[in-house]
Amino acid sequence: MTYHAEIIAVGTELLLGNIANTDAQELSQALASVGVDVLYHTVVGDNPQRLEEAIAIARKRADLLIFTGGLGPTYDDLTKETVCRVLDVPLTFHPEAAADIRRNFDIIFHREMPPGTLHQAELPEGCEVFCNRVGTAPGCVFCAGDVTAVLLPGVPSECRYLTETALLPWLRRQSSGTILSHDLRIFGLSEPQVQELLGDLMDQAVNPSLAPYAKTGEVMLRLTAKGDSPAACEERMAPLLEQVRGRLGAYLYGIDVSGLEETVLHLLHQHGKTFSAAESCTGGLIAKRITDLPGASCVFRGGVVSYTNEVKASVLGVPQETLDRYGAVSEPVARAMAEGVRRITGSDLSVATTGLAGPDGDDRGNPVGTVFVALSTPERTAVRHMNCGSGRDRVRMLASHCAFDLLRRELEHLPIEGE
Amino acid sequence: MTYHAEIIAVGTELLLGNIANTDAQELSQALASVGVDVLYHTVVGDNPQRLEEAIAIARKRADLLIFTGGLGPTYDDLTKETVCRVLDVPLTFHPEAAADIRRNFDIIFHREMPPGTLHQAELPEGCEVFCNRVGTAPGCVFCAGDVTAVLLPGVPSECRYLTETALLPWLRRQSSGTILSHDLRIFGLSEPQVQELLGDLMDQAVNPSLAPYAKTGEVMLRLTAKGDSPAACEERMAPLLEQVRGRLGAYLYGIDVSGLEETVLHLLHQHGKTFSAAESCTGGLIAKRITDLPGASCVFRGGVVSYTNEVKASVLGVPQETLDRYGAVSEPVARAMAEGVRRITGSDLSVATTGLAGPDGDDRGNPVGTVFVALSTPERTAVRHMNCGSGRDRVRMLASHCAFDLLRRELEHLPIEGE
Repeated sequence: MTYHAEIIAVGTELLLGNIANTDAQELSQALASVGVDVLYHTVVGDNPQRLEEAIAIARKRADLLIFTGGLGPTYDDLTKETVCRVLDVPLTFHPEAAADIRRNFDIIFHREMPPGTLHQAELPEGCEVFCNRVGTAPGCVFCAGDVTAVLLPGVPSECRYLTETALLPWLRRQSSGTILSHDLRIFGLSEPQVQELLGDLMDQAVNPSLAPYAKTGEVMLRLTAKGDSPAACEERMAPLLEQVRGRLGAYLYGIDVSGLEETVLHLLHQHGKTFSAAESCTGGLIAKRITDLPGASCVFRGGVVSYTNEVKASVLGVPQETLDRYGAVSEPVARAMAEGVRRITGSDLSVATTGLAGPDGDDRGNPVGTVFVALSTPERTAVRHMNCGSGRDRVRMLASHCAFDLLRRELEHLPIEGE
Repeated sequence: MTYHAEIIAVGTELLLGNIANTDAQELSQALASVGVDVLYHTVVGDNPQRLEEAIAIARKRADLLIFTGGLGPTYDDLTKETVCRVLDVPLTFHPEAAADIRRNFDIIFHREMPPGTLHQAELPEGCEVFCNRVGTAPGCVFCAGDVTAVLLPGVPSECRYLTETALLPWLRRQSSGTILSHDLRIFGLSEPQVQELLGDLMDQAVNPSLAPYAKTGEVMLRLTAKGDSPAACEERMAPLLEQVRGRLGAYLYGIDVSGLEETVLHLLHQHGKTFSAAESCTGGLIAKRITDLPGASCVFRGGVVSYTNEVKASVLGVPQETLDRYGAVSEPVARAMAEGVRRITGSDLSVATTGLAGPDGDDRGNPVGTVFVALSTPERTAVRHMNCGSGRDRVRMLASHCAFDLLRRELEHLPIEGE
């Protein structure tokens, strides 16, 4: 069957604009990937009466009601009670959920569980419990007359976790066919450039469909197919995937990876190589991104965040005269930083960044966004000069993207622009 | 009068999750600042019938309906027509709006204006036109019976521009008071512990109100007051704020700051001191967090991400026998790392982290989540032993919180637990 869904977020903080409703966005993407049509998003505050009215409206216009927020043990926890009252489903104590809550609480918090916590094991009668291993509030799905209701926590990481580990598998079990998608990750082309390269394919593509998702400094394409089986979906996607591969060439850096750092991690593992990073403008972002991934310790030896010239000189061994002559934001300093960090960490490869993340330019007339990114190998050191535009976070993210891209191109023996 | 608003975003791309509804967030913040209560957000696709139904519902539960999206000259431009049909207000041609559109088009696009463009000058009869200098689609506000309707473009930059330059001034002219809020940031107490300490105050508090927001490893309380002026709001909040301050003591680390790193940045500026970081398990997160902030270069000299024992020994000078005897995840190694990074960077203070972020424990039987965080000053080195539980991101975030908290307590001459 095809569900028609409404996502109802409960939380006054959303109506005050303290946070954006990213749960609804991520849920919508996830639901689309399994063929569920989302017809409405609704946001309502921590107010039982208004929530009641919203549920009464939703059940008339959708058959899958997904609620986020208001499941915690705090005083404003009201979603569960209100939903069950309106849909006329009693709350019952779920011992297995209580056991999960107790176990997860111990694992996550290592302290005594406050009495209120087990109240979260009171769940709709006959529901399927979604065990929450990244928080304490469990989610659940249950049927009430002609609607199916889903309760999820509002904390984005918990909502995401339960969507991927519980809701999507549950929905896949309901749907007759299969929906499969692949995320194609692209670096080095803007979204308009990708549109130009692939526009005709995107317009034609129905099943499989091909749609772009903008990300900071990169582009992601989602290729999605519906079919009777995963194999049938793959078969549908294969020809288009080949066309897209052919047109994107080296700009396509990975499929179904979390980002450039994951591609680099895999390549380093394959080649049995290690790297290190000397970071000025990225200030630890490169190290942070690679060490976000389990297994980083096998390929990342470490790095130096050289936020002052003294550290560039004393720790990385950048010659003082190079700093004086060219300034910290320069090609020769990027080069010396990369060579220095490779030497002191004993890594096979290394990258370095030096640039102006803003808000201000430097006294040598370099504008904000000027960044030099260096790659050093036993054979050579290459430096890419970028202008990342403005916006501190954006500049830092682009510079770190570039560093990972240089590592990827080195390991895949691809040309490095600007060489 | 006090408006009760509903923000209705029109756009299938929102229901597909291609973008988050940031217009609703920014509008909500803006509306709160002029005392408008936002009761609902609704998102509906580019579908006239469902939009009609959404409007019919909204006019019954709100008296200020703010629409975003669907004003462009494209095929899915339907908001204006549908809103006017449902609210029974005719569209008429506004010559002055047409002149604006023509002028802005020339300024922005420098090319001939497509014929469809002037269709955007068809606006509700008797409306006040909001001239759009950053795009072509004008916005407007008009009254229809007992509701006031506002039309805004969906492009975030245009929506933001018209909100600030036209909608807010219009609302101030109908003025109905101000809402002001302060965010109280707490580290070292769990949300249940904060509930225990402040529950009675939260329950009593109406205007000002006091509500908790969970964040990873810390707690945030938002104190919000309504009044005739910002000064009146502050006056309302002052007594409760003092009570809360008194009960939280040193656990309250900042008000209206972005996080512990901002508090530390301010304190270091005040004291004219610098710091550095030696990071193992946090892998650059401490450096990344401080350098996320403009002005970091004055207080952060740099850091070393020592992800291998070799780098701990060679770069930070951790004695090899200490590593062999106690293992990398140990109190003596944390101590030596902090002292080492302070020496090689020449900073006044330093912090160091070594621990197990997971997924695996170590061969000495330390469980995942074991973290040692050290603070080194010219006078002494203190080490805090934490068990951060599981979840790689969570462990790393908690460890970095702890490092910043140690710096804060040192600079504010507060006791450091575990000393």
